[in-house]
Amino acid sequence: MNNAESATAAIGNEPLKRLFYPRSIALVGASERSPWSQLLHANIQRVGFAGRVYAVNKTGAAAHGYPGFPSCVAIPEAVDAAYLLVPLEAALDALDDVIASGIKSAVILTSGFAEAGPEGARLQDQLTRRARAAGVTFLGPNCLGFANLSIGAAMTPMPFHPPFLPGKVALVSQSGATAIEIVEMAHDSNIGLSMCIATGNEAMLDTSACVDFLVDDEHVRVIMVFAETIRDTATFAAAARRALAQKKAIVILKAGATELTAKVAAAHTGSLVGDDAVFDAACRQLGVIRVHALEDLVVTAGLLAHTGPLKAAGVGIVSISGGACTLIADRAEAHGVSLPAFSPATQALLREAVPGTGEALNPFDITGVAVRDPALFERVLTALGDDPAIGFVGCVYSMPWNDKWDKVPAIVSIGRALGALGKPSAMLNQTSRPLTQKSRDIMAETGVPAVFGGIEAVVAALGRISLWSAWAAQGTAVRAAPAQASDARPDGERAVLDYLAARGVPVIPARLASTRDEALAHAAAFDAPVALKIASPDIAHKTDVGGVQLNLRGDAAVGAAFDAILESVRAALPAARLDGVLVSPMRGGGLEILVGTVRDPQWGQTLAVGLGGVWVEALADTQLRLLPVTAAEARGMLTGLRAAKLLQGFRGTPAADLDRLAEVIAAIGDAALALGDSLVTLEVNPLWVRGGDIEALDGLVIYSGSIS
Amino acid sequence: MNNAESATAAIGNEPLKRLFYPRSIALVGASERSPWSQLLHANIQRVGFAGRVYAVNKTGAAAHGYPGFPSCVAIPEAVDAAYLLVPLEAALDALDDVIASGIKSAVILTSGFAEAGPEGARLQDQLTRRARAAGVTFLGPNCLGFANLSIGAAMTPMPFHPPFLPGKVALVSQSGATAIEIVEMAHDSNIGLSMCIATGNEAMLDTSACVDFLVDDEHVRVIMVFAETIRDTATFAAAARRALAQKKAIVILKAGATELTAKVAAAHTGSLVGDDAVFDAACRQLGVIRVHALEDLVVTAGLLAHTGPLKAAGVGIVSISGGACTLIADRAEAHGVSLPAFSPATQALLREAVPGTGEALNPFDITGVAVRDPALFERVLTALGDDPAIGFVGCVYSMPWNDKWDKVPAIVSIGRALGALGKPSAMLNQTSRPLTQKSRDIMAETGVPAVFGGIEAVVAALGRISLWSAWAAQGTAVRAAPAQASDARPDGERAVLDYLAARGVPVIPARLASTRDEALAHAAAFDAPVALKIASPDIAHKTDVGGVQLNLRGDAAVGAAFDAILESVRAALPAARLDGVLVSPMRGGGLEILVGTVRDPQWGQTLAVGLGGVWVEALADTQLRLLPVTAAEARGMLTGLRAAKLLQGFRGTPAADLDRLAEVIAAIGDAALALGDSLVTLEVNPLWVRGGDIEALDGLVIYSGSIS
Repeated sequence: MNNAESATAAIGNEPLKRLFYPRSIALVGASERSPWSQLLHANIQRVGFAGRVYAVNKTGAAAHGYPGFPSCVAIPEAVDAAYLLVPLEAALDALDDVIASGIKSAVILTSGFAEAGPEGARLQDQLTRRARAAGVTFLGPNCLGFANLSIGAAMTPMPFHPPFLPGKVALVSQSGATAIEIVEMAHDSNIGLSMCIATGNEAMLDTSACVDFLVDDEHVRVIMVFAETIRDTATFAAAARRALAQKKAIVILKAGATELTAKVAAAHTGSLVGDDAVFDAACRQLGVIRVHALEDLVVTAGLLAHTGPLKAAGVGIVSISGGACTLIADRAEAHGVSLPAFSPATQALLREAVPGTGEALNPFDITGVAVRDPALFERVLTALGDDPAIGFVGCVYSMPWNDKWDKVPAIVSIGRALGALGKPSAMLNQTSRPLTQKSRDIMAETGVPAVFGGIEAVVAALGRISLWSAWAAQGTAVRAAPAQASDARPDGERAVLDYLAARGVPVIPARLASTRDEALAHAAAFDAPVALKIASPDIAHKTDVGGVQLNLRGDAAVGAAFDAILESVRAALPAARLDGVLVSPMRGGGLEILVGTVRDPQWGQTLAVGLGGVWVEALADTQLRLLPVTAAEARGMLTGLRAAKLLQGFRGTPAADLDRLAEVIAAIGDAALALGDSLVTLEVNPLWVRGGDIEALDGLVIYSGSIS
Repeated sequence: MNNAESATAAIGNEPLKRLFYPRSIALVGASERSPWSQLLHANIQRVGFAGRVYAVNKTGAAAHGYPGFPSCVAIPEAVDAAYLLVPLEAALDALDDVIASGIKSAVILTSGFAEAGPEGARLQDQLTRRARAAGVTFLGPNCLGFANLSIGAAMTPMPFHPPFLPGKVALVSQSGATAIEIVEMAHDSNIGLSMCIATGNEAMLDTSACVDFLVDDEHVRVIMVFAETIRDTATFAAAARRALAQKKAIVILKAGATELTAKVAAAHTGSLVGDDAVFDAACRQLGVIRVHALEDLVVTAGLLAHTGPLKAAGVGIVSISGGACTLIADRAEAHGVSLPAFSPATQALLREAVPGTGEALNPFDITGVAVRDPALFERVLTALGDDPAIGFVGCVYSMPWNDKWDKVPAIVSIGRALGALGKPSAMLNQTSRPLTQKSRDIMAETGVPAVFGGIEAVVAALGRISLWSAWAAQGTAVRAAPAQASDARPDGERAVLDYLAARGVPVIPARLASTRDEALAHAAAFDAPVALKIASPDIAHKTDVGGVQLNLRGDAAVGAAFDAILESVRAALPAARLDGVLVSPMRGGGLEILVGTVRDPQWGQTLAVGLGGVWVEALADTQLRLLPVTAAEARGMLTGLRAAKLLQGFRGTPAADLDRLAEVIAAIGDAALALGDSLVTLEVNPLWVRGGDIEALDGLVIYSGSIS
C-alpha cells in the first residue's frame, strides 16, 4: 500500500489534537462584512465555544466582538489553531504569519488551489512544502473545516444548529456540500455527532489521517466517511484495524472510481478485477462497513453507535402491523439478518401476554388487540429481554414528529419496556421520517431509548451491524507479509513453476530428457499421456518454434514428438542453447482454478481466485482480496464463488480438498508478495484440482518494465 | 391463471363506482361514543364530503349531526354505500338490512372473520354468499375502507389530514396499518393521492379488482399496491395490460411468499424455480414496476406521476455539490439510468453560462461560483431544456422544510428555469427529508415544480421509470395461448419427442431397425456414433432391462449392441411386444440447454430456461416467464442468463443461432400449453445447440394424477 508510514506517525498526534481540540482560535481574514466570517462567527456562538477567539486582519480591527490584531504574531498567546479565510493571493503570506507566530495547526478555507488547475496545484505545493518545513499541519485548502461538538468548538462555515445532540458519531467528508447534508440528516434522525470534518483538497491531512485521529478520540464510537478516494491506504488500513480492535466501527460511502487498476493484457487476472472490487475487498478485510447511499451511511452509523457490537446476532421484532411483520421477514432474508425463533420460554411468555396467540413467530404480530390494550406492548417486549438468541429488539411503531400527531398510550408502554430491557433496543418507524424536538420530548417522557427508520434502511443496517459484530468479535486476520526474496526473478513457465515449487506450491512434475530414450523412460514413468516442451534459456515463445507437443501417448508418439521438437527448434533458432526436452504428464478430469495477482496502484498487491477455463470467461466469477491472505481467507474466497458448488464435486469429479486448496492459494499469494514491488502480476492458470490432487500446470510472471 | 373472469366483468363496474364514488353514505353502527365512529366522522368532515350521510343504529338516534335511522331500510333514499362498523355478532343482520334497503355496495370494518380462524372463515363465507346472492358488493371484512380524495369522500377510520394535495396517485393496500404509513409518507413527500383503499380480508373485492377499477379511473395515473398475495391473477394481469396500454403505471411492493410452486421431484425445473421468481416474471411481462421498500414505492409512484412516460431515456443532472455529482454518476450506473453526454449545443451553452468550464459533463457540477451568482442555475438548467437526449432534468439542491432554513436566491433561480423548461424536471434533495407547508410555500413562490429525494431513492426510481417508459412505448407482447390439443397425452421419451416434433420443435432423429442389417444401415447413414434403444409400447424403463446402449461406432459395435439389446430385453420381458430398435446419432461439442415448464398454482404455466448440465447444477442460472412466450421473449430469456456469454461461442464451439433457438424455445412453451391443464411439467433436457443445429435430445412429461 501507499505511504507506508502512518499519518499520525508522520505528523504526530499533538498538532491534530491542537487542531481538532482547540482552546484558542485565530480567525485570519476575519471581518464583519465577510459572509464567510459571519458564518464562522455564528457557529462559534451557537456551539458555545468556551475558548479564546482572535480576529486577525490588515487593520488589526476587532470583529464580531473578538479582539483584533494585525497578525498572528501580534496575538499575545500561542494560539492552538488558525482559520485562514484570506483571498488566494494572500494565502502564502498568511501562512508565513502563522508559522512566525508559533501556531502549529490551521484550517485553510481559501480556494483556487489544486481544484482550479495546474497553476493552483503549484501554489498548493508551495503552501504544503512551506508548512511542512515549519512543522505546521493544516486541513485543506479549499475545505470547510470542522466542528468538534464534543467540546463545543467550531472552525467552519458549515451551518450547525442547536440542539446539539449528544452522541459518539464522527463524520469525515471530502465534500463540504455533502457533509452539510449528512449533518442535517443525522440531526433529523436524532443522531448525535461529536465531530464533523470536511477535508477539501487534502494537501496535508487526508481522510485517512482524520480517521486515524478519530479512532483514538474517546468521544468517538462510530466514524462515518464520505470519500471519493482514499489517498493514504496504509494509514487507512492501520486505522481500520485499530478501530476494529477497539470495537469502533467505520462506515464508508465511497463514490467514484479509484485510479484504474493496472491492466495487463498478457494475463487474464487484470481484466477480471474491477477497481471497485479492490475497495470492496479492502473493506471486507479491514472490517470496514461499506454502504452506497447517504441514508444508509447515517442510519447504519447511528444505529451502530446506539447498539454497539451485538452480543447475539438474532434480532427480535414486535409490530402491530401484520404488513410490517411480513415485510421485515422478507427484507431480513434479503439483507442477511437473523430473525431466530423465540426460545420456548419466550414463546410461553408471549402466549401468556397475548391470549389467542398460536405459534409466537418472530416478527411477532401483536395484532389490533394492542389498540384496546396498549399495555400488551410492555408485556410482549419484556418477554424478549431474556431470550438469549436475541441481541437486538425492535418495536415497529410510529413516533410523532409534527403537529398532526400526539403521544399515544402505546408509546408509553413501549418506552417502559425498552427502557428496562437490558439489551439494545429501539422503536422503528415503518418509513423514514424525521425526529423533531417534539419526538425527543416524547422519547424523554416515555423512556423510548432510540428511534430509527424506515424498515428498509434499518433492516439493511442490522445486516451490516451483525456482520461487523462478528468481525469485531473475531478481529481481523493480520498477517505479516512474507520476507521478500529479493533476488528471485523467475521468468518463463518452468522457472515460475520451479519458483512456486520452492515456496510450497505443488506443481506439475517435469523431467528433463537429453535423449529420445530418456524421454521415453520419463513418459513411461508418468503412466499418463505426456506433454513435451523444449527447455532452453534462450527461447521465450516455445510454441512459435514448434517447441511444444501435447497429449502424447505411447513410445512411438513420444519418440516422434521428441525428434520433431528438436528438429523444428534447431531449424528455427540454430544458435539457441538447448538444455533438452521437458516431459510432463497431462492432467484432466478435474477442475481448473485461476489464481492471479494484480497490483492495485492504491492498495498494492491483490489476489484474484476464480474457476478457470470457460467458467471464468463466461461468468467473470472471481473473488478478490488484498495480499497477504491466510489459508482461512483463501478458503472463504473459494466458498464465496458463485460456482462454489462445483468444488463439492459433480458428475464423477470428486469434491476438491478445500483446506489443501486454500493452503496452496495462500502460498501462491505469498510467493507473489515475495517477488517484491516490481511484480506486476503472477498468474497460475490453471491450478488443477482433482480431489486432493492439486498442481499448478502453468505459471506466468510479469515485472514492471518488462511490458510496454 | 386463476379466476379467469375479470372481477369487474363479474361484479360489473357500477357497484364499484357507487362504492368508491359515493354520493350518499350510511354509517351502520354509528354512535358518538364509538371510537371508530368518531374517526370515520372526523375524516368525513376533514375531506369535506359533500354528499349525504346517515347514521344507522338500534335506537335510530342521530350521531355526529347526521340524521339517525333504526335501519338502512328506513332511510328515505337509495344510499350508494353502507359502512358497517357493527360488532361481529350483528354483522349478518346488518348485511340483511343493507340488502333489504337496496343498497348495492358496502365496506365492512367488522373483524373476527377469516383472520380469526376457521369459525370466522365460515362466517365470512356465509356473509359473502349472502351478499353475492343479493347482488351486493362489499370491501372487507376486517378492512379499514377507503378515501376518495379526488371527490372528497371518506369511508375509513385511517387518519386523513389536510391539506389534501392534488395528485393522481392511488393506493391499494391489503394492510391497513401499512396503508396509514404510506399515506403519511406520500403526504410528507408532497405527493397527492386521489384514492386510498385498504382491502382487508378480500372476501369479495380483492387487490386485483380494486386495481382493475382504478385503471379506468380518470383521477388515477399511477397505482401503488402493497400486497401479500395476488388472489385473482387473471384480473390483475388483464388490468396491468390495460394500464400499460393507457400509460398508467402500477408500482407494487409484494411482501411474503406466494403459495408454494408445485415441486416435481422427477423434473429439474421445479427445483430451480423460486416462487418469488414467478412473481418477478409476471411483473416484467405485464409491465408492472416491482419495488422492495416502502420509500421506493412512494418515491417511484410520485416521481412517475410527475414525469409521465419519459420521451427520452436520458437524465440530465445539475448540482452545486461535486460529491452529489459523483454519487449520482455511480448510482446511475448501478440502477441502469442513462446520463448521456450533453449535445454539442448544450455543452456550448454550458460553457458560455459558466466561464472556466472545461468539458461540460453530465452530471454538471455548477461549482461554488453559483453561491456568489445564483442566476447561474437558471442559465445552466435552461441550457438542458433543448437537449433532445435529455428526457428529465434534476437539479440537486436542498428544499427548506423547517424553521432553521429559509428560501435562498438559488431556489428562485432554479424555480424560474424548471418552471419554463418544457420537459419533466424536479429539484432533488440529497437525502430523504419531508416537504412541509413551508416547502410548498417556497415552491409556489419560486415555481419549483416538484421536489424528490434522496439521491438513492430518486436514482433507483428513475431507473424503473426509464424501463417502464420503454415498456409503455412498446406495449406488452400479448399472445393468445395456442389451441389446446386436448387429445394429445404423449408419455415416454420418444412419444414426447414425436409430439414436440409435430409442433415444430426439432428433435434428435431416430430410425426404427427391425433387423441387425437395418440397424447397421441407419447407423452408417448418420455418420456419427449412435445410440440404440429398444422400441416397445410395453417397456417404460428401457435402461433397467438392458434396452439402451450408447456411443456406438462402427458396424461391429452397432451390430453387437443390436443383438445384445434384443437378447437382454427378451430375457427380461419375454411377453413384451417389440417394435424394433431405435437408432439415433450421438450429439456432442455444443451446449446443453434446459427448457422446462412448471405450473404455478397462482400464475399458471411458466417456462424456465437455463444452461443445462453442470451449469444449471452449479449456478441455478435460469430465466423464467409466464406462458405463452413469444420468440422475442425467449430470446430475452437467453440473453438474460448470467452465463449468456457462452451462447456467443467459446473454445471452438460456434455461437448459437439465438433467433432460431428462441423460436424453438417458444415452440416448446406452446407445445406445453397445448397439453392443457393436466400438465404438471414438460421438460426438454437437454436441448442441444451447436451453432444453428438445435435438437431436443430428451423429453419428459408429467401429468397431474400421474405422480404421487
